[in-house]
Amino acid sequence: MIEFAVPETIERQRVRIEEFIAQTVIPLESTAYEQGVDDGLRIRLQAAAREAGVWAPQVPSSLGGGGFDFVSSAILLEEAGYSPLGPLALNCAAPDEGNMHLLEKTGSSDQRERYLHPLVAGDVRSCFAMTEPPPGAGSDPAALRTTAERLDGGWVINGRKWLITGAAGAGFAIVMARNIDGSGATMFLVDADNPGWQVGRHLKTIDASMPGGHCEVVLEECFVPDEAVLGEPGRGFDYAQVRLVPARLTHCMRWLGAARRAHTISTFRATNRELFGAKLSSLGMAQAIIADNEIELSASRSMLWHACWIVASGAKGTEASSRAKVFISEATSRIIDRSVQLAGGMGTSEDLILGRIYADARAFRIYDGASEVHRMSIANRVVRRMSETPRTNTDQRAADS
Amino acid sequence: MIEFAVPETIERQRVRIEEFIAQTVIPLESTAYEQGVDDGLRIRLQAAAREAGVWAPQVPSSLGGGGFDFVSSAILLEEAGYSPLGPLALNCAAPDEGNMHLLEKTGSSDQRERYLHPLVAGDVRSCFAMTEPPPGAGSDPAALRTTAERLDGGWVINGRKWLITGAAGAGFAIVMARNIDGSGATMFLVDADNPGWQVGRHLKTIDASMPGGHCEVVLEECFVPDEAVLGEPGRGFDYAQVRLVPARLTHCMRWLGAARRAHTISTFRATNRELFGAKLSSLGMAQAIIADNEIELSASRSMLWHACWIVASGAKGTEASSRAKVFISEATSRIIDRSVQLAGGMGTSEDLILGRIYADARAFRIYDGASEVHRMSIANRVVRRMSETPRTNTDQRAADS
Amino acid sequence: MIEFAVPETIERQRVRIEEFIAQTVIPLESTAYEQGVDDGLRIRLQAAAREAGVWAPQVPSSLGGGGFDFVSSAILLEEAGYSPLGPLALNCAAPDEGNMHLLEKTGSSDQRERYLHPLVAGDVRSCFAMTEPPPGAGSDPAALRTTAERLDGGWVINGRKWLITGAAGAGFAIVMARNIDGSGATMFLVDADNPGWQVGRHLKTIDASMPGGHCEVVLEECFVPDEAVLGEPGRGFDYAQVRLVPARLTHCMRWLGAARRAHTISTFRATNRELFGAKLSSLGMAQAIIADNEIELSASRSMLWHACWIVASGAKGTEASSRAKVFISEATSRIIDRSVQLAGGMGTSEDLILGRIYADARAFRIYDGASEVHRMSIANRVVRRMSETPRTNTDQRAADS
Amino acid sequence: MIEFAVPETIERQRVRIEEFIAQTVIPLESTAYEQGVDDGLRIRLQAAAREAGVWAPQVPSSLGGGGFDFVSSAILLEEAGYSPLGPLALNCAAPDEGNMHLLEKTGSSDQRERYLHPLVAGDVRSCFAMTEPPPGAGSDPAALRTTAERLDGGWVINGRKWLITGAAGAGFAIVMARNIDGSGATMFLVDADNPGWQVGRHLKTIDASMPGGHCEVVLEECFVPDEAVLGEPGRGFDYAQVRLVPARLTHCMRWLGAARRAHTISTFRATNRELFGAKLSSLGMAQAIIADNEIELSASRSMLWHACWIVASGAKGTEASSRAKVFISEATSRIIDRSVQLAGGMGTSEDLILGRIYADARAFRIYDGASEVHRMSIANRVVRRMSETPRTNTDQRAADS
Repeated sequence: MIEFAVPETIERQRVRIEEFIAQTVIPLESTAYEQGVDDGLRIRLQAAAREAGVWAPQVPSSLGGGGFDFVSSAILLEEAGYSPLGPLALNCAAPDEGNMHLLEKTGSSDQRERYLHPLVAGDVRSCFAMTEPPPGAGSDPAALRTTAERLDGGWVINGRKWLITGAAGAGFAIVMARNIDGSGATMFLVDADNPGWQVGRHLKTIDASMPGGHCEVVLEECFVPDEAVLGEPGRGFDYAQVRLVPARLTHCMRWLGAARRAHTISTFRATNRELFGAKLSSLGMAQAIIADNEIELSASRSMLWHACWIVASGAKGTEASSRAKVFISEATSRIIDRSVQLAGGMGTSEDLILGRIYADARAFRIYDGASEVHRMSIANRVVRRMSETPRTNTDQRAADS
Repeated sequence: MIEFAVPETIERQRVRIEEFIAQTVIPLESTAYEQGVDDGLRIRLQAAAREAGVWAPQVPSSLGGGGFDFVSSAILLEEAGYSPLGPLALNCAAPDEGNMHLLEKTGSSDQRERYLHPLVAGDVRSCFAMTEPPPGAGSDPAALRTTAERLDGGWVINGRKWLITGAAGAGFAIVMARNIDGSGATMFLVDADNPGWQVGRHLKTIDASMPGGHCEVVLEECFVPDEAVLGEPGRGFDYAQVRLVPARLTHCMRWLGAARRAHTISTFRATNRELFGAKLSSLGMAQAIIADNEIELSASRSMLWHACWIVASGAKGTEASSRAKVFISEATSRIIDRSVQLAGGMGTSEDLILGRIYADARAFRIYDGASEVHRMSIANRVVRRMSETPRTNTDQRAADS
Repeated sequence: MIEFAVPETIERQRVRIEEFIAQTVIPLESTAYEQGVDDGLRIRLQAAAREAGVWAPQVPSSLGGGGFDFVSSAILLEEAGYSPLGPLALNCAAPDEGNMHLLEKTGSSDQRERYLHPLVAGDVRSCFAMTEPPPGAGSDPAALRTTAERLDGGWVINGRKWLITGAAGAGFAIVMARNIDGSGATMFLVDADNPGWQVGRHLKTIDASMPGGHCEVVLEECFVPDEAVLGEPGRGFDYAQVRLVPARLTHCMRWLGAARRAHTISTFRATNRELFGAKLSSLGMAQAIIADNEIELSASRSMLWHACWIVASGAKGTEASSRAKVFISEATSRIIDRSVQLAGGMGTSEDLILGRIYADARAFRIYDGASEVHRMSIANRVVRRMSETPRTNTDQRAADS
Repeated sequence: MIEFAVPETIERQRVRIEEFIAQTVIPLESTAYEQGVDDGLRIRLQAAAREAGVWAPQVPSSLGGGGFDFVSSAILLEEAGYSPLGPLALNCAAPDEGNMHLLEKTGSSDQRERYLHPLVAGDVRSCFAMTEPPPGAGSDPAALRTTAERLDGGWVINGRKWLITGAAGAGFAIVMARNIDGSGATMFLVDADNPGWQVGRHLKTIDASMPGGHCEVVLEECFVPDEAVLGEPGRGFDYAQVRLVPARLTHCMRWLGAARRAHTISTFRATNRELFGAKLSSLGMAQAIIADNEIELSASRSMLWHACWIVASGAKGTEASSRAKVFISEATSRIIDRSVQLAGGMGTSEDLILGRIYADARAFRIYDGASEVHRMSIANRVVRRMSETPRTNTDQRAADS
């Protein structure tokens, strides 16, 4: 069956999150961005979220989360994303949210005890150390240069990472490295106090909502015991997919909320402003902005739910999540950009949060697979599929003419 | 629940339509466009469709149709639209499909007998006579100028219509007129042999798939009996909505199929052509075209199903159908345009059907509400809704700052 | 000096062309498209153009043309393009205009006498036979498959061409073929009555303004004497550039006129229509269309003049003409598309010529180098130039970081 | 004559600026943005610029500037804009550059002595106090609320301004106020130490290159003597045009340089990076980015020169400058956005200056007339012109059909 009915329980939780964001998170935004988003703020916000009964919607209830399925999470995380600080408050922000998912799917029971439980509880933050400076792993993960060498009772990791979000202040990292013996790649759990894990400078980027920044990291003779291997050695690239496919979609959820916020603020303003003797919201070019935002929010949401349902149904969802990621990252960019424009002189200001959302959102079209990389991957899959399809006579004629 | 599972019965019917289109309709395209799409072709195609068990998927089975619900129809009519002649063959093409829906919802049992049954059976074609030359009803239906005056036992209609699709050769028309006494507008069933109904010249447009063309019509002292009133006098504008909301969505269904056809043909060609020493489909700019087509087909489909479900659930769906119509008419335009580009020198040719689809599709962004009119309507509704919402303190601050 | 002053003599000639198009060409459009654009119409239009003193602006006066330089021609051919039949009337239409240029630059005095003079005089039409069906020469001219073999006193040409505009009814063709001995490609002048030159079927395309259509051609044991070689044997690809660089820009000139026509018609209509109680031209979304058209017409014109000046100054202009061709073909497409939209229900009609311009214009983004091919070529040149530039320290840092 | 030849003297000065930016300005960028762009930096940069012989190209040499005409300034200020700090260094940045122009055109000889000379010399900064918080003057200057009342020997100004760029630290302001007696608007020169001129908080915006920020200002019983009136009382709106038309174009010049910088950095990187086994710059989607940037830079430049020539020739240039402002602000936005994308993970970083340019550039589509306001103005002028044109019969038919 094809159905779009949002169950009552989900709607009630959505409203709870909406109220929490409106009453508790948004009032803190202004000072947060003046003082910087740090762990003090995170701890304060997270305490409030637990109190409000909106904690970690996407995490199984057995682990202490809301226990909502993936499609319901699309609704709830969109609501959390209405403030750029909302996902942090609800403990459903990147990179922790993706790391929780990965640990849940691949972690041993000891690893879950030691890393997943405190992460779900908000007692620590984590980071995901995959990206490397050129010519290492970036848009092309296969270029991975960080190495892991097996020794007696453990491994030694060497390499450089950068743009590692949240590295400063994280309690541990999930590190991706290439097995030096050619047997694939492996993921490791590395404690932040490991002397071989050295967090360097923060790359100065235009976003401002991630505690711990985007850091350079050096792994130098970083020894970890065998128990630090996540899942099995050599399966790192598989696990990357386990993490990345749903992580792309949770990004879409959160940014959809942020885009709706930008749209809502600018539309409210337009209903309130007089320009050339009329309400701004009655002028055709403003109406085009408002309508295009509504249309693209709606298209994004339907497409996102569809992709989430595919993943939730047990399919890999690589292609559906790629399509959704490209479309939604670009659509939300356009929505935010138009909202900035509609807000006029205050559009690039953080007073209205619009400027902050605009600057924060830009990287979404790049991280977790740049639009171009997803397009290449989508096209390759389509072409492969078409090449394998027995063609009808007509198609053949078209192809051959 | 939110679900996207296509039931097995629907999938089976979809495949049946797919095969019918591939084996029976597509082979006739070339000669159809050389000789013109006329009723001879229509009758031949429709006989084959009935034979193949794919007749009128969207029509209740009690009336002789496939009996599929509106969301399932989205899947089946997309498949029919894979050929521009497919909807004609399956008797789910505009304007008949919309007229069937309207007659089913508002017709008396006599009217259903006399007009709906033969229409469903394919024994006649019909037309919908609403649009008028300026300064009459066009994008703004309220500008309606054709008048209806009540006499003893009937009405007299006077006025001019144009761009009336399928008027030449139609067995009857549904005519929209303004009651001369100011009591709203009324819809009338007018037989084609009524001497007051005069079909004039065909406006020369760039599309070529509609039998009966797009005609000028004059209604001159056109007398119809009381039984010719569809539903109740004075409720014409309500009935227009009854017809137009779903009709917008069935247009989206059919054009989605046509866009997929264009995409499929050009992608097949790209997998088959060598250019600059590589497969065309391996070149980045071709991959961008292929991926963007996939992405927008997918976004369109999810959004369309969502809008259809809203309508099927009993809601009016005005806003959802407006959003879907704007997005899908524009997305399919882009898909078709990119497919033409990817096909290169043959892209504007009818040999590949691409040129024909390109020319036929252009009007979709204009008819049944131009994109701009829907945008205005969407914005007005959003603004009204926001004005009525009790604002949170935060939103208020944003709106007032 | 950088100057944009249009000399008085050019402005006077522009006005003369404007009046000729308005008074003589436009009134014939309607019947022309009903009956088909053929040589009868061409001869009639050309006689009128000579009479009106607007003949062949771009051709040297020594040859009987207007004698205007290339930048002035940009102004005059834009004016000619205001009607899709204007360039035909003024003998500045493709493919003859490009062939005249090529013959003038490379033809022997005998060839000029025999081919160029009658072509300038309008006594014959010609065609340019380069494009081949896949896997031959199309977007990639290097794939040329038609062969030329040198014999005693002449050459034998074998191969297939297609999409040869104007082939039916042309007096002669300029044929591009690959020397069978590997010594490059050669251009030949082939008379239409050569028994080895066989014009086949017209590919059915959506444009309608070219007499002679777009044909398949077979060259079968086509013998031509040595005097049929244009310029020198083996230099065909060089000559192709001689022809194509300015030909791209004359296409831009003519289509700029057509786009202005579409814009003018739809804007006039918008100033004349009432919609929702206001002039259509006062509604914001209509104003956005009108303004965007003005803006892109203006940007196109400045860019075109600049590219023409570069070519006229003696530079090769490959890159400038590629940039202009991509921008202007895409900008005029957008302008025409928006004009269709603004004209509403009549937008796709030939009654307003808009539908005709829309359908005719589509191929401009494909022929004479598809946008993608020009983009590849532009990027390759930029990258090569940057690779050769000694980098400043700063750039180096950026490139290496 | 239409000519695009850049005179040798201009080219030499352009190279001088290019070298100055590369050797002196760019190396300071990194620390500048870490520490904030302030007057210390400004003074240091300006001293270096004077030393290098690149001072204030656009200012008449009689006043101590470079003495270049407006079209030449387009070339030189584009070069200055290659670093976001370049215009500040060369004393050709907003708002001072526009204020110099306005003072030169309208200032009395005393005012020029007291305000213009120190401004040209770089001894003070200034600001332009026109924009007001809603419902005051913003996109609609006519909504001006700040009042000026004439007293004996002077005027009293009352009102609130905001988004006043450079207000903090400026030596004086040009203030726009509405004459309380209804006799139009007046511009005043207000010294920063006037007790009635109170600079309030800096609005927190996402740009970072303007010393003095974007401030709220209160004018409270601000008394100025008669000599503080710029030009004549009541002519403020005229003078606003004197300032705004060329100021729009100098914005275009500078941002064109910044866009070229972004394009250059990302293209250099692309020629240097390997991805999927190939140079990034050889991949089709990267080539599309590179080519589109080249194309739009080129279109922007031709259009800008054209508009500058129109203004330099003595025409008002309102429409040409509006067209150029809309096109170039949007084209440079796209260029910068694509460059960010091509640079991948580092695209939003200030390490590559790309992130900084991206954030700084956003407001350009809003200030000095938002795109929508210019579009409205352009459309209104076109429509007015068309309404006044005697129409040809053909146009009439089109308009009336």
